[in-house]
Amino acid sequence: MNPSHSSNDCISSDKVEGTSVYNAGGDKLGSIDDLVIDKHSGQVRYAVLEFGGFLGMGTDRYPLPWNMLKYDTVKEGYVVPIDAATLEKAPHYTDGDMPAYTMDYNQKVNRHYGMDS
Amino acid sequence: MNPSHSSNDCISSDKVEGTSVYNAGGDKLGSIDDLVIDKHSGQVRYAVLEFGGFLGMGTDRYPLPWNMLKYDTVKEGYVVPIDAATLEKAPHYTDGDMPAYTMDYNQKVNRHYGMDS
Repeated sequence: MNPSHSSNDCISSDKVEGTSVYNAGGDKLGSIDDLVIDKHSGQVRYAVLEFGGFLGMGTDRYPLPWNMLKYDTVKEGYVVPIDAATLEKAPHYTDGDMPAYTMDYNQKVNRHYGMDS
Repeated sequence: MNPSHSSNDCISSDKVEGTSVYNAGGDKLGSIDDLVIDKHSGQVRYAVLEFGGFLGMGTDRYPLPWNMLKYDTVKEGYVVPIDAATLEKAPHYTDGDMPAYTMDYNQKVNRHYGMDS
């Protein structure tokens, strides 16, 4: 996701999961909890942001289109160009209540972030 | 990975990790421990098979090209067309000793399984 990386620069899902996510202003939004992968192609479609809740309880999950995440080597985390209002209204679900990532759901998520489906 | 799945059929990395892997003969080889993802494109390159060891200690990690894995809905696991001799000689590493997935390393893995780099 970092443009300076070659197409052969790989990362472990174990390392992505748990990585902090910041907004453009440098505020920490939360961390990556999970990845949503296209079974057929193996393409990672979404990195699922976990945030909210108290002491890890009741946190929500917000799928973010993978290509919205840029890795910041200084922050050692991902930066996403999403303002609070946009995230607040974004499709989300609670842990253990993951929806089916159908074409309709994916389009709903992508369109919320102004991306083509 | 199952051809019957549409390109919109997604799966969580949390679900992939821990899924059993079988050979064509139906013998269980181990389970998926990790995924190796191309940072830039978001493409999953390898599913890392964990097997060997004793009570989970000293197990080895074998990166398997993602598109070699086919999901078997009856076994509820992945089936890979890899015989014991091929797997025995395959590139692998111990937990905590993950190599850099450079172009050279990826080609080494892909060629071992007779795939183009």
